[in-house]
Amino acid sequence: MDSTLSAPLPRPLAHRSSVDPFIVMDVMGEANAREAKGEDIIHMEVGQPATPAPRAARERAQAALANDRLGYTEALGLPSLRERIALDYGERYGVSVPPERVVVTAGSSAGFVLAFLALLAPGDALMLPSPGYPCYRHILKVLGARALLVATGQEARWMPTEGDVERLAGEGVAGLLVASPNNPTGTMAVGGRLHELARACRRLGLWLVSDEIYHGLDYDQPAETALAFWDAAIVVNSFSKYFSMTGWRVGWLVVPEGLVRPIERLAQNLYISPPAISQHAALGAFDAIEELEAIKSVYAANRALLLHELPGAGLTDILPADGAFYLYADVSQYTADSASFAKRMLKEIGVAITPGIDFDPERGHRFVRLSYAGAPTAMREACRRIRSWIKAK
Amino acid sequence: MDSTLSAPLPRPLAHRSSVDPFIVMDVMGEANAREAKGEDIIHMEVGQPATPAPRAARERAQAALANDRLGYTEALGLPSLRERIALDYGERYGVSVPPERVVVTAGSSAGFVLAFLALLAPGDALMLPSPGYPCYRHILKVLGARALLVATGQEARWMPTEGDVERLAGEGVAGLLVASPNNPTGTMAVGGRLHELARACRRLGLWLVSDEIYHGLDYDQPAETALAFWDAAIVVNSFSKYFSMTGWRVGWLVVPEGLVRPIERLAQNLYISPPAISQHAALGAFDAIEELEAIKSVYAANRALLLHELPGAGLTDILPADGAFYLYADVSQYTADSASFAKRMLKEIGVAITPGIDFDPERGHRFVRLSYAGAPTAMREACRRIRSWIKAK
Repeated sequence: MDSTLSAPLPRPLAHRSSVDPFIVMDVMGEANAREAKGEDIIHMEVGQPATPAPRAARERAQAALANDRLGYTEALGLPSLRERIALDYGERYGVSVPPERVVVTAGSSAGFVLAFLALLAPGDALMLPSPGYPCYRHILKVLGARALLVATGQEARWMPTEGDVERLAGEGVAGLLVASPNNPTGTMAVGGRLHELARACRRLGLWLVSDEIYHGLDYDQPAETALAFWDAAIVVNSFSKYFSMTGWRVGWLVVPEGLVRPIERLAQNLYISPPAISQHAALGAFDAIEELEAIKSVYAANRALLLHELPGAGLTDILPADGAFYLYADVSQYTADSASFAKRMLKEIGVAITPGIDFDPERGHRFVRLSYAGAPTAMREACRRIRSWIKAK
Repeated sequence: MDSTLSAPLPRPLAHRSSVDPFIVMDVMGEANAREAKGEDIIHMEVGQPATPAPRAARERAQAALANDRLGYTEALGLPSLRERIALDYGERYGVSVPPERVVVTAGSSAGFVLAFLALLAPGDALMLPSPGYPCYRHILKVLGARALLVATGQEARWMPTEGDVERLAGEGVAGLLVASPNNPTGTMAVGGRLHELARACRRLGLWLVSDEIYHGLDYDQPAETALAFWDAAIVVNSFSKYFSMTGWRVGWLVVPEGLVRPIERLAQNLYISPPAISQHAALGAFDAIEELEAIKSVYAANRALLLHELPGAGLTDILPADGAFYLYADVSQYTADSASFAKRMLKEIGVAITPGIDFDPERGHRFVRLSYAGAPTAMREACRRIRSWIKAK
């Protein structure tokens, strides 16, 4: 055998493999490793429910396991699931969406890859909210497109404004991505903001990609879909968050008619089809609204608990989140390096949180994100540990 | 609502969305639509087993459904599955692979995307066998890399040769992809060919990507892994074919140590993690060898049946396949346009096959691919229908 244990590479790797890590996944890896060694870890790092898929989804998966071959589905997804998702737009938002415009994807991750490939030529830029989900900019970089970060502020609830879009639009800028509720801040586009942004994009000839993955998880007022304001908006959504199905890797896009076939061709080649059993389970998820609303009420209680307790624990500067299950806290009174702050917190008191630099390369060193998707007892214990830890500093 | 039913797009789509379709998926869509209308269709178009995942895999999925939250896993996959796959290299090939070099992926589709992104800068070329799996060249195009087609011939069992690699290597050519057994031809690199190719790549400073997705499905002699000849080879594999788990979307890569972290970063951002339930099921698949060998014996019988019957039915020019579940037949005595030949065959006698142009843009108009992964009765009936249809021409 002509080999050695660590073979030298025949040539250098391509530069795009040097993309930044999705830091939250690294934190989760470290937290899991500590847990495996017997440490008592509270997970506030990853944006995922502590609950499994709802019962009706698991029952559909059971039935599919028993009765279905679970081979490839159509690249655009099971027709029955596309229909069910389309129906939901009528029921939930009062917006009419034909099933033909729904594309089932392997999670919202695949949704972003497909949408970005279809919309952006190499070198094109997409405006992204900052702070925002880090994979937006990393996927863009990997695909040879550019992220044009829109620095948002607390005063605008961490949302881009019509003025931002007008100021930044120009040569090579192909569109705007907006997420409401936003990750990591949990804030929403309220007061007509989403309508304004859609209008600006239409006027300026820009794509509007609306990340609606946290829809359903709203505590004050219902989140609006961009489709209510513009049929040419591209909506990205998923069964991961409200439907509590992260590891199933199933989500969807709603796209204008002219994008369906281009996206189908991309999906055929890059994914073949989304996982079959997950698509069957997702069909069941729509029958589980009672169970899902009960889960959501736990998040609401966690949110109230944290907003009440964290200021006393020393995290005083937090904008109340309108949705999702995140709080974004300014920790600049304790550190100028939120990454090492988070690392020490994990090591010293077993509370895993995510440093803001994952979400905002410019200002994130002052912030941390806390996910409150866990169990209420864990949230309470986290507050206790953080309080003593910060007091001891 | 400021919208219309088919909204005009705000700007043109990106050129890369014009990638060719994966034609076999379009044929499957057409075949399924006819079936849904009550037509009696024999599926010889898609490369997927007619069997579900083996019992032990389904039992693991059941257990995971009952006992596991099925959240995100590590981006590189469940550690237990990475270990089990690594172990298989010792058991099956006598090659030592540490688990750290195994990357679980969402099917081989994700494996190709991750490998191509890590290895190829925009503009770099990868040598591909032609005929070959069409998504290789389509994925390369989407990612801004180039496909350098190596026209192979029957006399070399449709495999590239060392001479091809030497002739084509040069500026901007980053590596070679080889698939043994190959799709669509079913032929294998035998007689030391894979060792030769590995040696040539190493000597010339080229990546070697070895698509081993049809391993396990070999009828004459066992397929060799490129890892037996070179530890720096990148192996792509999947649970879809031998393990009969197409729709589960779970596969793996084996990569040299220096690629693990770059690929992990790409996977975190582009996929988050492979589907959790599919990874659990895959663990069970390794306990199902008896069942899988029984399925394989059906393919062997189908292969023998088709090689015996098809010449009498008029498809005389077929190279006996060494592996996989495909035959690649020259139909130039009947047509100069295999796409319309296949379309007519589906419409007129309900036998779905794939035109060669999916696999070889240059010469494929003379060929068709027949998949024999279906039930033996269906194969026999297909031969009967094809015979009468060709006789009537």
